[in-house]
This record gives sequence, C-alpha cells and structure tokens, in this order.
Amino acid sequence: MIVPIKLINKEDIKYNITIGDLPKLLFNNKVAVITNDRVAPLHLDTLLAHIEADNLSVVTIKDGEEYKNMATIEYILDNLFDARLDRKSTLIAFGGGVVGDMTGFCASLYQRGIEFIQIPTTLLSQVDASVGGKTGVNNKYGKNLVGAFYQPSAVYIEPKFLDTLPSREFGAGVAEVIKMAVMFDKEFFNYLRSVDFRDKDMLKMVIKKSVELKANVVNQDEKEAGIRAVLNYGHTFGHVIENETKYKEYLHGEAVAMGMVMANELSVELGLLSRDESNSIEDMLKEYNLPTRYVIEDVNSFYEHFFLDKKSSNNKIKFILSNGGIGTNIIRDDIDKSILIEVLKRFV
Amino acid sequence: MIVPIKLINKEDIKYNITIGDLPKLLFNNKVAVITNDRVAPLHLDTLLAHIEADNLSVVTIKDGEEYKNMATIEYILDNLFDARLDRKSTLIAFGGGVVGDMTGFCASLYQRGIEFIQIPTTLLSQVDASVGGKTGVNNKYGKNLVGAFYQPSAVYIEPKFLDTLPSREFGAGVAEVIKMAVMFDKEFFNYLRSVDFRDKDMLKMVIKKSVELKANVVNQDEKEAGIRAVLNYGHTFGHVIENETKYKEYLHGEAVAMGMVMANELSVELGLLSRDESNSIEDMLKEYNLPTRYVIEDVNSFYEHFFLDKKSSNNKIKFILSNGGIGTNIIRDDIDKSILIEVLKRFV
Repeated sequence: MIVPIKLINKEDIKYNITIGDLPKLLFNNKVAVITNDRVAPLHLDTLLAHIEADNLSVVTIKDGEEYKNMATIEYILDNLFDARLDRKSTLIAFGGGVVGDMTGFCASLYQRGIEFIQIPTTLLSQVDASVGGKTGVNNKYGKNLVGAFYQPSAVYIEPKFLDTLPSREFGAGVAEVIKMAVMFDKEFFNYLRSVDFRDKDMLKMVIKKSVELKANVVNQDEKEAGIRAVLNYGHTFGHVIENETKYKEYLHGEAVAMGMVMANELSVELGLLSRDESNSIEDMLKEYNLPTRYVIEDVNSFYEHFFLDKKSSNNKIKFILSNGGIGTNIIRDDIDKSILIEVLKRFV
Repeated sequence: MIVPIKLINKEDIKYNITIGDLPKLLFNNKVAVITNDRVAPLHLDTLLAHIEADNLSVVTIKDGEEYKNMATIEYILDNLFDARLDRKSTLIAFGGGVVGDMTGFCASLYQRGIEFIQIPTTLLSQVDASVGGKTGVNNKYGKNLVGAFYQPSAVYIEPKFLDTLPSREFGAGVAEVIKMAVMFDKEFFNYLRSVDFRDKDMLKMVIKKSVELKANVVNQDEKEAGIRAVLNYGHTFGHVIENETKYKEYLHGEAVAMGMVMANELSVELGLLSRDESNSIEDMLKEYNLPTRYVIEDVNSFYEHFFLDKKSSNNKIKFILSNGGIGTNIIRDDIDKSILIEVLKRFV
C-alpha cells in the first residue's frame, strides 16, 4: 500500500529528529537519564545498552501528571548536583510527555542551561510533546504555567518502545495526531479515517507525518507568537477539564479529545465547521476509545477557569477553531461570553 | 575636569540602557514591580510616580542574599498569578542584584517568559548585575546554580537612588568597577586611582564606563562560551568565600574583592602580574573600605568547593587571571593543584 502523505522538505526542519531504530549514543561527557518508575522496569536496560558516556547516572521519578511540579524539579536538580554534572553535561529524557517537559525544564535551569536529548516512550510524546521545546510544570493555578522555551539538541523516536504502551495511553497519543490532521491537513485526516494505525507499519508513517507537521509549525513560530497557537486546538477547553479534575481523572490526550469536541461545537455554532465533519472527528476519537463528552458541573466556574490559561492575555481568551472545515484553522479571541456559555451548556 | 574615558560606540550595544534621570514609564499592559522591604520604604513612591499602567501591582520580598532561593521565586510567581498577569505583562525589578536576578528569573519562568525591565538601586547592580541577562537563585550547592539566561528589555540607571545607599554597599559596587578596570582597561584603572568617585559627577561617568565595558563583553558572548567568563575575575574564589560563610558574612562585592586579591596572588605566583600592581589593586579596594583578606580555615575544603562552581566543567576549574598586568586577562583551566594549594595557604 502506498501511503498518501506529503513529507516536508528535510531542510525546512531545524530539529535533529531520528525516527526508527535507536542508534548507539556515544558521549564524552557526563550524562544523566531522567525516567520514571513505570518506564524504567520496562525499557531502561535497553536504553542503557545504547549509551556510552564518561559517567552515567539515572534519576527515576514517580510516574504521573500529579508529580509534574516544582518539588519534582528540585528533586531532579538535587540529584544532578549530587552527580556533579557540569555545564558540558547532557540530560536524556526517557519517558512520556511529563518526563520530557520536566527534563527539558531542568536542562534549561541547571547552571543556566545544559544540553538535553528527548527519547520519548509514549505515542503522545513521540508525535507531539518531544518536539518543539516547550518545557515546564503545572502549579495550583493551572497546567504548564511555569517553564521555559528550551530546545532539545536531538530527538530519537523509537516506535518499539510503544509495544508496552497500554491502549488507553495509545489513544491519548492518537488525540494529538487527530488534532494535527484536523487543523492542518484534510488529506492526512482522510488517510487516518481509512486505516487502523495500531498496525505497526502504518504507525511509523503516522508518527513521521505528525512530527513533520509539528516541526514545521514550531519552525515558523517557536515562541508561539502566531501559528504555533493552533497546536492548542482542544487545549483551551482541555486544560480547564484537566484543572477541574485535578489532572487525576483523564490523561492529557483524553482531556484534549474532549476539548476538541467542545472546540468543534463552538466552530459549528459559528458556522466554521459542518455538523457532519464535527461528527466525523468525534467518531474517529471514539474509534480509539477516547472519551469525547466531558460533563460540566458548573458552567460559570468552567468559564472563569479560561482566564488563567496562558493563552489568555489582557482578559481575552484565544480559541483555536476550524475556519471552514477539516484542514483549516483560525485563532479567535473575540468570542462573546454569551455564545461560549451557550456552547458550554450543551455539555452540562 | 575632562574625563579621560573612551566610550564604546552606541551601535555596538544592543541593550536598551538609559543612564540618568528616570523617565516617565507608560505601559498599556499589566505591570508588577518586584522590590524588597529595604528599598520600598525609601524609593517606591518615587518609582510609582513614574509609572502609568493598566494595572499595577507590587510584590515586596525580604532583603538579603539568604532569600535568593526557589522558595522566594515561588512566592513571587504565586503573587503574579494572583494578580492575573498574562503573557503580555511586564515585570519591573526595583532593587539590587538579588531583586534583579530573581525578577529576571521569574520573568523567564512565568508562562514560559514575559518581558522585564531593570531599575537597579545599588551601585553593584547599576554597574554590573542589571546588564547581561544572568538570572537565577542560589541553592545548598552554591551560588546562582539554578537560573536562566534572560535579557531585560530595558535598563534604567538612576544614580539618585544611590543617595540612600549605605557606604558598605557602595564599596561592594566599587569592587565590580575595579574588576572591570583591572581586566579590561588600564587607563580606566589609573583614572579610578586618581579620583574619588564617591563624588557625584565622577560617579555618573564611572557607572557609564562600567556599564559600557560590561555590555560590550556580553554582546560578544551572551552565554559565556568565552570572553564573558572574564567578568568572573575574583568570583571563582569569591563564590567559595560566600558559600563557606553561607552568604551571611559578606556582601557579594566584598567576597569578590577578597576573591580578586586571591586571584591576583595566583597571577603573581604565575608571573602574570607584578607584586606592585597587585598591591596597587589591593590598596584601591582598601580605599573604599573593602575587606581584602579572607582567612581560610581549611585549605583542602576550600579547594574542594571549587568543583561545584558553574565555571568548573569536566573537573577543570576556570581561573580568570591577569595576563601580564592590569588591563589584560586570560582564562586558565590548567592550574596545578599544588600551585593552588600553595597560594591558598598564604591566606590561612
């Protein structure tokens, strides 16, 4: 089967991204691997067999979004100081998005910045989080509110690490793939509709295409002054969902899936997306067992939560919407409160 | 009197630095002033009279190097979230080096980076710390070990704020001025020897010259890959002194003064500085009532402390030395332990 995906010109991508068999990694400096207690028992031996370094240490943190906070950052940093890492040392993020975001953040902070490498082990981090240099932690005010823009020097994506990924987590990654397709590439969306990319050969192509779409956007707008914000499709709503459920009930990708359905509802309301297309997106999310309907307890409280989102500025909330159907996008910060409340009420 | 100072070409300086009367500052966004409980009672009213903003808040922290830590960073960030600052907001650092370093660090962290402005109120921060974008905090392992390179969008240097500066703090700033002269400009050093720059007209010129020397160096090498390290003259030793005395006994500039005397001793030992010049530098430090002789309790423990300094990498310690006299410099990481121990023993 020929895969109908247009690939982006290599030269357009300034990130050093390798997809496929993990190569042997040789370092003539000190290296610390940051991983978590779920990934370590499954894959750490494999990783360590691929690394040669002057001095190698491993910092294992607890698995879970609830540990994505400053306390864990300080724990990791203390371990790096104890291991006497210096300005020429390298960190390796080995895990999902949480490990990647925190390792990158620590790399940005340690002695005002050392090199780091991403080796993502979840679908979500392989297709999205490991590329683009957004690092940081959550706090009581919301998600990723404290952090840095800090680019990895390399990203190694090894699909074999996904073999042990629970299907629920696989679905969470699928949500970000669908996000990319809905916003940027109708042909890719149609392709995704036509295949089951739990199939391995298909999966590698899907990862490649998603990473390329992501890298292309980040290339154009690293600091999210413009188009990069489109990657937050589903996230304006999703972050509120995660916040309301204290990051415990849903995986990030699951919250994004439900957030996309809300965003679509707003797009439909504004005449920017047809009901058919909206249904088609929701159907696809369901195919991968993603939750699509968040039940809002208190519409006004949900609405108030928007204003702490990073995407809100000068009391305006940015919504990422379709702009006439799948494969199109627009950033809108002029949505009337009354329209929003109306849309939110459909999820009560 | 004509001041014999060569000024650097304005175009060579990419930092937006204003020296002289503080202008009226107009903002059409949210602004938060970060200051401390010593500066606030003296000058905050003056500052606030110069600011117009959509929404202005003030965060006051405790004065002192011992509060330069992550706990204070989190305290400031919480206040910024409570004040609902957004990505378009501006922070203003109003205080000495500690306030400047922490405000810059918070600006780099808040929602992954917002704008900040430096309005330094001590001589040390006016001539040195406010320019160059080094931000961060201390931790139990040492000084400024966690932070970010993050440039202020503007620096306003108002010498009038120095009117209330205690003479001990004035001296601490003088140490950094002398550092700049000894490393980069013999003519400037001789000029400094010939005047008392506690005199106000003289002082403004001295600040201007120091800032220009600093900005020129940082321009060439923001991330300290090379020449910027020369600004750490006196600091390799000074940081150990501060660390051993837990940042409590000496002001930063005082530790640097004692550190310069140690570095000079090493330069003399290596034949890179004459005993006469070394004495002349020490005499000048004494003229401004700076301490010049730190008494080392345990030479080996002092030596071991070097290796946690950021300037150490791959177990090599970088020393910033003279390279043939005042106005010259060299970065050396090849000093034998035996020579160092010998030099350190002269301070027992």
